[in-house]
Amino acid sequence: MLSHPRLSVCSGGVERTGRSSALSANTCFSSNPQERDLRCILFSIAMAHDGMDNGKVKVLNPHLASLQEDVLYHLGMSNTTHDLPEMFGDVKFVCVGGSMGRMKAFAEFLRGELGLPRDEESQRNLCEGTDRYAMYKVGPVLSINHGMGVPSMSILLHELFKLLYHAGSRNVLIIRIGTSGGIGLEPGTVVVSHAAVNYKFEALFEQPILGRLVSRPTQMDETLAQELLECSKQFAEDFPTILGDTLCTNDFYEGQGRLDGAICKYTAAEKLNYLKHAYAAGVRNIEMESSVFAAMSNECGLRAAVVCTTLLNRLEGDQISSSHAVLSDYQLRPQRIIAYYIKCKLRKTQCLKV
Amino acid sequence: MLSHPRLSVCSGGVERTGRSSALSANTCFSSNPQERDLRCILFSIAMAHDGMDNGKVKVLNPHLASLQEDVLYHLGMSNTTHDLPEMFGDVKFVCVGGSMGRMKAFAEFLRGELGLPRDEESQRNLCEGTDRYAMYKVGPVLSINHGMGVPSMSILLHELFKLLYHAGSRNVLIIRIGTSGGIGLEPGTVVVSHAAVNYKFEALFEQPILGRLVSRPTQMDETLAQELLECSKQFAEDFPTILGDTLCTNDFYEGQGRLDGAICKYTAAEKLNYLKHAYAAGVRNIEMESSVFAAMSNECGLRAAVVCTTLLNRLEGDQISSSHAVLSDYQLRPQRIIAYYIKCKLRKTQCLKV
Repeated sequence: MLSHPRLSVCSGGVERTGRSSALSANTCFSSNPQERDLRCILFSIAMAHDGMDNGKVKVLNPHLASLQEDVLYHLGMSNTTHDLPEMFGDVKFVCVGGSMGRMKAFAEFLRGELGLPRDEESQRNLCEGTDRYAMYKVGPVLSINHGMGVPSMSILLHELFKLLYHAGSRNVLIIRIGTSGGIGLEPGTVVVSHAAVNYKFEALFEQPILGRLVSRPTQMDETLAQELLECSKQFAEDFPTILGDTLCTNDFYEGQGRLDGAICKYTAAEKLNYLKHAYAAGVRNIEMESSVFAAMSNECGLRAAVVCTTLLNRLEGDQISSSHAVLSDYQLRPQRIIAYYIKCKLRKTQCLKV
Repeated sequence: MLSHPRLSVCSGGVERTGRSSALSANTCFSSNPQERDLRCILFSIAMAHDGMDNGKVKVLNPHLASLQEDVLYHLGMSNTTHDLPEMFGDVKFVCVGGSMGRMKAFAEFLRGELGLPRDEESQRNLCEGTDRYAMYKVGPVLSINHGMGVPSMSILLHELFKLLYHAGSRNVLIIRIGTSGGIGLEPGTVVVSHAAVNYKFEALFEQPILGRLVSRPTQMDETLAQELLECSKQFAEDFPTILGDTLCTNDFYEGQGRLDGAICKYTAAEKLNYLKHAYAAGVRNIEMESSVFAAMSNECGLRAAVVCTTLLNRLEGDQISSSHAVLSDYQLRPQRIIAYYIKCKLRKTQCLKV
């Protein structure tokens, strides 16, 4: 595994004290005006946050202190082979989504939206020692794929939160941008999740630990959800965005009541009945990662949001058969909202009314 | 999505009747002696199987018959855009494993072991329209990655079984070759699974369907497991192989009792106690996909096996910190057994005593 040079535009301004890092006043010195502007804004945000609280990403594991080396196996890094504070100390936003290709494209899209220069480093996969995940860094933003399903998301979050902890990152927001099936919505509608719910429509994530089931809450951060809804108004003429509960399942076919899997032992009427019950309970879309994402972010004190586009209306069908061009447009919608939100936060414009 | 030409060495010998296909006598004509040999053997096997029973891969879904098109969304194929009988009608073995890179490497390794020519087609990713999965075809063998965790495996199997059904494939064996944590075993020991068990050590897979939990059995095919154990004796001087139960979890850290995740609220003693209970119940390794793999293969009538190497002994630690070279050697071990098994089956040598 290789040690990576620092990739962020804010690289000049990181002061390290042991394993913590913070942006400092010399952050603002740079020959590139865009870069300097972004650095100064980041410095202000960091200072404002630090004034309120420490804001450091938490781990809830006393055993970590006794590890001589912490190997983040599925990320292909460790805290001794990589200078994590140098590489990630300035991270303020983490965006995650299922597909490697989509998260690489998002990093590139965001780079353009933030007006940052296109360089080799921003296009480099930081998980180059493994093919389990791919990670890109654009200024203070990480863009990472999480694969499909709760277990794949869970592995990523354990190692990502440890990475941010070792890096001393502070006041980090984490946002999942993904695809989903909608319920009772026009395809292409974007859903900002209010909570991730299980198959009984409860806002809980159940996890077996040492032979016992442990339940954790899966409410999303309300303020962040409202801010994102506010941002989505910029795109109201192009597509609708709503707030709703998100059903998180462990299977795409039987688990979501589809009629088109290799196994299906229920009728179309039974399927529709379940989906209508879901709708009545407040569910507006279905995907496969939000429950553990909410539960773990809540535990570790990261503000979290899930913003998913809907590829179809499940009350009308199961197959995703729209054209490539239509699906590409749908998939871009959450990215546009999130890029706009990050831009607003970084530029401290007054576009956020909430 | 593109239509793929047939890639198999057996391409000359497929007769199509509607959507079913079978190897025929002209299978045996080829200018390449190795290819001819392999074709003739495949023809004999197919005939022998067909004499006993139909052997066709089943789907358990009456709704599929009413679909005009079946889009295998995560494989980037459909039964109208791709000639599935032509592409996959001759498949006899499907090997699945977590990582894209490893399954590409396995396809290449197998090609060498089977003495097949190295051509562009055998190195081509058949899921080229998506980055969710990667699939390679080497003669009558598919090598596909399934990602990490039960949900990712489940999506693959639904679409793979439908693919094989549409292709009219017969007498297909499916084998997962993977990595795992061992319990009470020397690292590098290979475990052939007797059954996949849940966190209570029951051989069951629980799946929520339309609001209710449905349980399915997760015993592996006993004859196949014994055949693979027999094959493993070829490598007894290099590494040990044993039969044991496999604990399938939905999480790599807390779900497997690790002390090195971002969250850990139990003691080292509590962890050890759980792992020792697992050992006493017959569990010899822990991974994250075998339960749904066994349950779905059983449902659809495919004989299935799980063969995993162990990367560490979980009674002694949690971190995977062996060198890259050591881990690479460990990961190759199940591949060597499976390649030998497939070679034996295809060449009808007398190396299998069971």
